Amino acid sequence: MVTGHGEIPTPMFMPVGTQGTVKAVEQRELEEVGAKIILGNTYHLYLRPGVEVIRHAGGLHKFINWQKPILTDSGGYQVFSLSDLRGLNEEGVTFKSHHDGSLHQFTPESVIEIQRALGSDIMMVLDECTPYPCDQTYARESNALTLRWAERCKQQLERSRPLYGVGQSLFAIVQGATYPELREFSARNLVEMGFDGYAIGGLAVGEPEEEMYRMTSLCTTILPEHAPRYLMGVGTPKNILESIERGVDLFDCVMPTRNGRNGMFFTRKGTMNIKNARYVQDFKPVDEECTCYGCRNFSRAYIRHLVKAKEILALQLASIHNLSFYLWLVRSARDAILAGRFAEWKAGQLKNLSVEISEE
Amino acid sequence: MVTGHGEIPTPMFMPVGTQGTVKAVEQRELEEVGAKIILGNTYHLYLRPGVEVIRHAGGLHKFINWQKPILTDSGGYQVFSLSDLRGLNEEGVTFKSHHDGSLHQFTPESVIEIQRALGSDIMMVLDECTPYPCDQTYARESNALTLRWAERCKQQLERSRPLYGVGQSLFAIVQGATYPELREFSARNLVEMGFDGYAIGGLAVGEPEEEMYRMTSLCTTILPEHAPRYLMGVGTPKNILESIERGVDLFDCVMPTRNGRNGMFFTRKGTMNIKNARYVQDFKPVDEECTCYGCRNFSRAYIRHLVKAKEILALQLASIHNLSFYLWLVRSARDAILAGRFAEWKAGQLKNLSVEISEE
Repeated sequence: MVTGHGEIPTPMFMPVGTQGTVKAVEQRELEEVGAKIILGNTYHLYLRPGVEVIRHAGGLHKFINWQKPILTDSGGYQVFSLSDLRGLNEEGVTFKSHHDGSLHQFTPESVIEIQRALGSDIMMVLDECTPYPCDQTYARESNALTLRWAERCKQQLERSRPLYGVGQSLFAIVQGATYPELREFSARNLVEMGFDGYAIGGLAVGEPEEEMYRMTSLCTTILPEHAPRYLMGVGTPKNILESIERGVDLFDCVMPTRNGRNGMFFTRKGTMNIKNARYVQDFKPVDEECTCYGCRNFSRAYIRHLVKAKEILALQLASIHNLSFYLWLVRSARDAILAGRFAEWKAGQLKNLSVEISEE
Repeated sequence: MVTGHGEIPTPMFMPVGTQGTVKAVEQRELEEVGAKIILGNTYHLYLRPGVEVIRHAGGLHKFINWQKPILTDSGGYQVFSLSDLRGLNEEGVTFKSHHDGSLHQFTPESVIEIQRALGSDIMMVLDECTPYPCDQTYARESNALTLRWAERCKQQLERSRPLYGVGQSLFAIVQGATYPELREFSARNLVEMGFDGYAIGGLAVGEPEEEMYRMTSLCTTILPEHAPRYLMGVGTPKNILESIERGVDLFDCVMPTRNGRNGMFFTRKGTMNIKNARYVQDFKPVDEECTCYGCRNFSRAYIRHLVKAKEILALQLASIHNLSFYLWLVRSARDAILAGRFAEWKAGQLKNLSVEISEE
């Protein structure tokens, strides 16, 4: 995948930098762990520090000093999940900020303008992310609205220009809850409109895993092979491998950093709850094959101590490690794909990845 | 100053790594900001992870992977300030852990043994740190007890050996509250016993600054010039410069990291409360002369945003910056001393350092 801030080999995992920072990880450390693109959240950045600050900084890349690609969501998901939603109609969504209760509106046009000001390499259309379960009539109407909004986003894209001299792509979002005919309708219409890439939204919202895989497969069958496919908000290492097999190129998820901050480490041999007493005097690295800063320098015993003592360094080391792991995972998946042995490699990984390490 | 883990140019500031980590700062970042020695707290490490874990790790240096010198306090100060103190007598102190209420005893002998297990380059004697104000009779009796404990620590030092093949020094602590005759008595007796270095304790506990300087001057007049003098728990940049002028070599204080975590930045032009609205669109670095990671890469506006958004990266950048500043300060003081222009340099610094930046 090519952007104005560099190329992105796929499949790729995108660390989540909600407020213009990947929690507990320095920008130089993002490069160190192999991040090629990070995600920023439009809803959060729009509310704080505000679009004007970022525009005056010369865009989000300059504001946060990250020179590689950035993808921003449209803010829609957070409006529905975080804010006090006041109204949803043809025009857009009206909401109260979760910070101070102030009233705001997002429209398909305004979220493109906001993302122009952010200067993200990949912008996302405004959509309604339906919950699970979702009534079929509601899902159908919501889906139709999301399609009309996508068209308006595309028109606004064409009416506007990048502010900082670097091209910006626009990705559409396939919705349709867990109804195959709605997913198909959504995907076909969006492909018809023509976007730079296509996200699969409205999954990983509580539906059974098999349902998620079924919807993903259905979408990737329809979406064009030459355009990137992005499965939003997914997921566990297993979810990622299963979805790569189904044709997904891009992923984002707070799991590696959020779970890391709770003392959960992903390793090549399974997940590890570092708080477990068995690590009290375990002086091995968290993952002996990992090359991250923590694994090269510190023991499970030390990291366990930091976690138990609620030290900030624990959050830093866990986030760095888990991101290293996720980025290793997608890099290895790519290598396996290029070597033509993905299915075999994946089967081997799945045996380990979902295990909680209990004995060694 | 020479230790088994390297030389320390003086004057020197020692970042505080209470629980085996300087809060929010990675060990490689400590090297980056120029730390030559860090402090560990015996009371905290004894309670968690416990001496056995650190002994099995091969000492504190290996446990935390820090190969430069470490100074550990004796735990006395924290017993008096943090624990539920149950008894103080000739033998030692009995206290309840602030974690779980478990009962423990520190004696002059046991704190040496604990510090042998930690393997710190500089060990401290067990002392009673008197409060301010302090009744003269109490101060006299406490001072006499601290002297007897110092003697027992020294005997225990001579009876014991380093566990990891690296020599360990023992520093005594001058007490005596704000009574000149007690300070003098304490200092003379400790010098008579003979230690590798001498700390000045019981200051920066609420007494007027002038009182602190007076006591410090009194002590440094008596303490031998060839042995390092360490003013415990001090202080502001101004405190440090005033004390260097009075002959102090070593300092430790949580101020740079703690204040940093609250959004207060030390700069060459004064202190800066980054939360102030005037920094919303200020794209200059926090301190234009500073070479730390944050000042080289991020703006006041971005760091302000991180602080307001309560992001962990704010804690990291503030801690790195303020430690860089403190270490720059003592390095510059040394340069000025060696160049024979300390008084003049100090006068210039004092004009700026204590100012709160309000206009630029």
